Amino acid sequence: MNNSFGNIFRLTTFGESHGKAIGGIIDGCPAGHTIDLDHISIEMQRRKPGQSKIVTQRNEDDSVEFLSGIFEGKTTGTPIGFLIKNKDQKSKDYNHLKDSYRPSHADFVYEKKYGLRDYRGGGRSSARETACRVVAGAIAKQILENVDIYAYTSSIGTVSIKDDYILDNQKNIEASIVRCPDNSVSEQMISEIKNARKNGDTLGGIVKCIIKNVPIGLGEPIFNKLHSELGRAMLSINAVKGFEYGSGFKGTKMRGSEHNDIIKTDETTISNYSGGIQGGISNGMDIYFNVAFKPVATVMKDQQSIDSKGNKSIIKGKGRHDPCVVPRAIPIVEAMAAMVILDYYLINKTKTI
Amino acid sequence: MNNSFGNIFRLTTFGESHGKAIGGIIDGCPAGHTIDLDHISIEMQRRKPGQSKIVTQRNEDDSVEFLSGIFEGKTTGTPIGFLIKNKDQKSKDYNHLKDSYRPSHADFVYEKKYGLRDYRGGGRSSARETACRVVAGAIAKQILENVDIYAYTSSIGTVSIKDDYILDNQKNIEASIVRCPDNSVSEQMISEIKNARKNGDTLGGIVKCIIKNVPIGLGEPIFNKLHSELGRAMLSINAVKGFEYGSGFKGTKMRGSEHNDIIKTDETTISNYSGGIQGGISNGMDIYFNVAFKPVATVMKDQQSIDSKGNKSIIKGKGRHDPCVVPRAIPIVEAMAAMVILDYYLINKTKTI
Amino acid sequence: MNNSFGNIFRLTTFGESHGKAIGGIIDGCPAGHTIDLDHISIEMQRRKPGQSKIVTQRNEDDSVEFLSGIFEGKTTGTPIGFLIKNKDQKSKDYNHLKDSYRPSHADFVYEKKYGLRDYRGGGRSSARETACRVVAGAIAKQILENVDIYAYTSSIGTVSIKDDYILDNQKNIEASIVRCPDNSVSEQMISEIKNARKNGDTLGGIVKCIIKNVPIGLGEPIFNKLHSELGRAMLSINAVKGFEYGSGFKGTKMRGSEHNDIIKTDETTISNYSGGIQGGISNGMDIYFNVAFKPVATVMKDQQSIDSKGNKSIIKGKGRHDPCVVPRAIPIVEAMAAMVILDYYLINKTKTI
Amino acid sequence: MNNSFGNIFRLTTFGESHGKAIGGIIDGCPAGHTIDLDHISIEMQRRKPGQSKIVTQRNEDDSVEFLSGIFEGKTTGTPIGFLIKNKDQKSKDYNHLKDSYRPSHADFVYEKKYGLRDYRGGGRSSARETACRVVAGAIAKQILENVDIYAYTSSIGTVSIKDDYILDNQKNIEASIVRCPDNSVSEQMISEIKNARKNGDTLGGIVKCIIKNVPIGLGEPIFNKLHSELGRAMLSINAVKGFEYGSGFKGTKMRGSEHNDIIKTDETTISNYSGGIQGGISNGMDIYFNVAFKPVATVMKDQQSIDSKGNKSIIKGKGRHDPCVVPRAIPIVEAMAAMVILDYYLINKTKTI
Repeated sequence: MNNSFGNIFRLTTFGESHGKAIGGIIDGCPAGHTIDLDHISIEMQRRKPGQSKIVTQRNEDDSVEFLSGIFEGKTTGTPIGFLIKNKDQKSKDYNHLKDSYRPSHADFVYEKKYGLRDYRGGGRSSARETACRVVAGAIAKQILENVDIYAYTSSIGTVSIKDDYILDNQKNIEASIVRCPDNSVSEQMISEIKNARKNGDTLGGIVKCIIKNVPIGLGEPIFNKLHSELGRAMLSINAVKGFEYGSGFKGTKMRGSEHNDIIKTDETTISNYSGGIQGGISNGMDIYFNVAFKPVATVMKDQQSIDSKGNKSIIKGKGRHDPCVVPRAIPIVEAMAAMVILDYYLINKTKTI
Repeated sequence: MNNSFGNIFRLTTFGESHGKAIGGIIDGCPAGHTIDLDHISIEMQRRKPGQSKIVTQRNEDDSVEFLSGIFEGKTTGTPIGFLIKNKDQKSKDYNHLKDSYRPSHADFVYEKKYGLRDYRGGGRSSARETACRVVAGAIAKQILENVDIYAYTSSIGTVSIKDDYILDNQKNIEASIVRCPDNSVSEQMISEIKNARKNGDTLGGIVKCIIKNVPIGLGEPIFNKLHSELGRAMLSINAVKGFEYGSGFKGTKMRGSEHNDIIKTDETTISNYSGGIQGGISNGMDIYFNVAFKPVATVMKDQQSIDSKGNKSIIKGKGRHDPCVVPRAIPIVEAMAAMVILDYYLINKTKTI
Repeated sequence: MNNSFGNIFRLTTFGESHGKAIGGIIDGCPAGHTIDLDHISIEMQRRKPGQSKIVTQRNEDDSVEFLSGIFEGKTTGTPIGFLIKNKDQKSKDYNHLKDSYRPSHADFVYEKKYGLRDYRGGGRSSARETACRVVAGAIAKQILENVDIYAYTSSIGTVSIKDDYILDNQKNIEASIVRCPDNSVSEQMISEIKNARKNGDTLGGIVKCIIKNVPIGLGEPIFNKLHSELGRAMLSINAVKGFEYGSGFKGTKMRGSEHNDIIKTDETTISNYSGGIQGGISNGMDIYFNVAFKPVATVMKDQQSIDSKGNKSIIKGKGRHDPCVVPRAIPIVEAMAAMVILDYYLINKTKTI
Repeated sequence: MNNSFGNIFRLTTFGESHGKAIGGIIDGCPAGHTIDLDHISIEMQRRKPGQSKIVTQRNEDDSVEFLSGIFEGKTTGTPIGFLIKNKDQKSKDYNHLKDSYRPSHADFVYEKKYGLRDYRGGGRSSARETACRVVAGAIAKQILENVDIYAYTSSIGTVSIKDDYILDNQKNIEASIVRCPDNSVSEQMISEIKNARKNGDTLGGIVKCIIKNVPIGLGEPIFNKLHSELGRAMLSINAVKGFEYGSGFKGTKMRGSEHNDIIKTDETTISNYSGGIQGGISNGMDIYFNVAFKPVATVMKDQQSIDSKGNKSIIKGKGRHDPCVVPRAIPIVEAMAAMVILDYYLINKTKTI
């Protein structure tokens, strides 16, 4: 139940950070689509460690091997199995964690829940698992050829893009190593990250995602509203603490008469506080939402903790870690969004006969 | 797929606002529990229209009739079917909406998605459906006898409880008709609502929910993290625009070294920015989260809109509506939380043999 | 999990034999279909007790009340809630069973599984639940307007229709109170049933079901083959002990060269040992299968058994029961078949984009 | 939806016969179990081609590589990913099938359903997929340490073990290359297969499976009865045409008074026509059932058919194929049974709190 995502277009993943490989199965992928493997590689590069000077310098190759479901370049409707081998893991970096519980990590709860855990590199709780999501998301993006999904960094720590910022050129996102399209804010974010790293500390931030050209009618009212599923998808990404769409938390301070989106005769709305979703169903306007990431829990400082026998221990700050995951989280947010939109597109095909 | 919630403990609901009845089926309820029907009634009263001067004066009875699954006062493990008859609906109040799409309501998208809709009282998209959730949540609460779940209003419009407010007496919540436990803030909120209503306008707000005594180990890593499911549950409630748990959006501005929750030898943590959940799994600390509600879309003012033929129309503000749903949303938030905790408690029983 | 059937078109049922009511929720019903309530009534009459002299003389009304999901005569795409009140139950007929376990009934296992049970009239394990399936099946049949589904009695006890019998007129089925279209065999079956009843005994039999005009392509290869789902559906009906489709058990004695269905240039096959399904997917030929029903467990004779304390007890044969359920099972078999075909039709819509 | 099996203990598989690899993910496997890899190998050997002179001489290695979910020899509760590389495929053997539809194979329906297919070696519809089931089943068997599951060949073509045959020594099954424990019948079966093969023809047969020591209470009443799920599991195996449990089709000819299983004070029953399941729930007696396999569709004779353009074509009989799959199906039947029992064991843990 826990390692699958999606109803019709469904990804199931496996793999520990320092095991032989991670990978997954994409079930329910529509048949007959030409798959561009280069595009998948590009998406993987966007998530990959070592891609710039401000991220972890681990050198994971992250090349994907497809094992089934694609024949002569096209999806066949059968499950797409894929593999990403683990190569650069240095498990002995983690030996000191064997019997210790790192603060704000999953070590303690895994041990309590399952009675044992693969402690090497965080095991299953490592964000390495999200590489599999990027694979499935890249395929979903290709199938959703008319839908445009992109995310960017809107804040890192206390450095934030302006509230009224409107993106005018999507290319500016990738031009920034923190994936913030506003050039001057991007520079400040980079300094902020370097500064935190120098102090052995880490940062969080907020990712904004925009989805354009979503057909009207996606989303299942009541329990599977389109935004409930987007929210669940985002909250399932490591380190995420919050999700808001449309007017979000700020919208709670508006009056109804201001907040309502007046519908025009062309069926678009004047404002879009609804964030492209009404009653859980897409209305054709842009969908947009924010995702909050906590600061990375692995700091390069000594921390108090306990070991598995309940004794006090010191967690040493070592290993190769990101001072801030937000820049690498951008493609993961997009991937999860793409999977949700495709899944709900397929579900929506069953509403009439 | 869309009208069911939960994996093992699963609620499926049906019913339109002005149909004969709404109701539901609770499947997977553990056997052998004595059910206190009075407690369920009390929960229903907390959600019910007409309960105070600041909510809608519709007079829905909301008494629940149980049809199965409870025998000689105890759950039998078979599905619990229940019914809430619709009594005070005044469908002709809605005749003017037959061919019109209210701004920021689901009228337009239902029509596009399904090709037709029961327009009376909002039909299926009415928040009346949430009464069924309160029934299931009340049963879940009873079964989770050691777990303590309570929510309260933390802001309405721009009136907000202090950031560092700590609840000392749970009874103060119900003592306030807005369900804000801080007496002076509660008074301001009431004025704010009265004021908005006087102007034919509406308000939103934020609900905080706290869950105490959750056993360690609940939550399925990866896609069904405990907070992903709580988030999805909350985002499925009508008018919700955002969800954050633990340190939430504010936590993104902290440094890792501040944000980490140091584990003590008694297995509790010094701080609790994690909000009782690490890696998607409960760690035994209090779970807490915020839920953002937009201002009610039905205002008592004329609004521009379009009709089903694409012509301009005017939506008249009439009918009996809440100027602010937040006070009545409190038991709904608690109910959804209870269902998630019980469901994940049952799932967790299958992790070892 | 256990009280729902279907993936997209999904029925969830509730209700005990002697509770207030039984009923269900049909979720995922396609929108925009006109529903003929008279047709549903007719289907209910076919299943109903008391319909002829050879079935139980209990007088259940079995009229269905629809509570939601149908507006101005059409399905709206929202869940269809429905209710069938229990009227003629004589619970005191069952008081003697409170602490006793009837042989080959579910009394013993329910008590062991759940720790308690509603013993009145068999509670949840009563075949009364199948009335809800007939409701959902009748709706599925209406939506599948071009597909033709009919079942008939092919054997009762040792009286059997000829192996090479081919139905030439579907009307002959309903003309027979045992629903056997061969007139002379029908007469023998009626005698056989009367004879068994006279002896306080009961009979089983076999139902054959034929489905015509199924579109090519329904069925999900591997675990959800069309015949696996049909088999599961039939095996979920009370008293069913076996399922075979196409050549079935007899086909195991044929050679491959005889058994293969040669494909003609019009894409039909010369023979149809495959029973309209190849590799789990419909090929456009008639689907046909057999369903085995055991003799009714409630006999009008005293039987040895034990009570809930493990002591010997005598089960008295009393109450109003069917000497043979096969004639009343016909519409249930059809209903389950209709639900499977519609569900898989809807799933199949998601295979391409 | 289609490539996953099980609710809590869930296998998802991928892979085409002549792709790079087949494999799967086992999700929901209970944590803390020591896994015996040698036992898994032995199970794989039992299914493997080339194991005896009467099965296909293809030389597939079928060694399993585990990629995750097992740490220091024990299950960790995280998903178990595994891979079986394809090695001996001779795809050019299948070039003649690129545009042709083999009779009673899935070629035609896959092409119609998906618009394209990987024709090499049957692609996804090949029984090679069942190797993944044996892996998952072997793990399920190990976890179900007290439950005893074994199947044997009870008929091949017209050669059948006696009706009243009772197995006295489980070892006799594996002592026979057709896996028929009755020595003299086994010899006849071997001759029958050799004879069919000599004629370029193929045979079907019946497998009997017995499950001992199943705890009382497994099985979910109504739609997920234990036997419905067993039936669905068996019917999902390639070439299966029928399933019956307990008294099965023959039981339909008995009278209720004969067929009822009288309960003794030790809570066992005198007879066991119920096949260990009452009302869909295990009662502690032996579960037993029969599974019918059709004769293999690939015969070594020329057959009429059509090509993808609708023209007549001749299918040549060539390649390395089994004249009868029944002997190799034995471990597959056991594997599917083991998965069902474990899954329902885990589900049953959630029935009380």
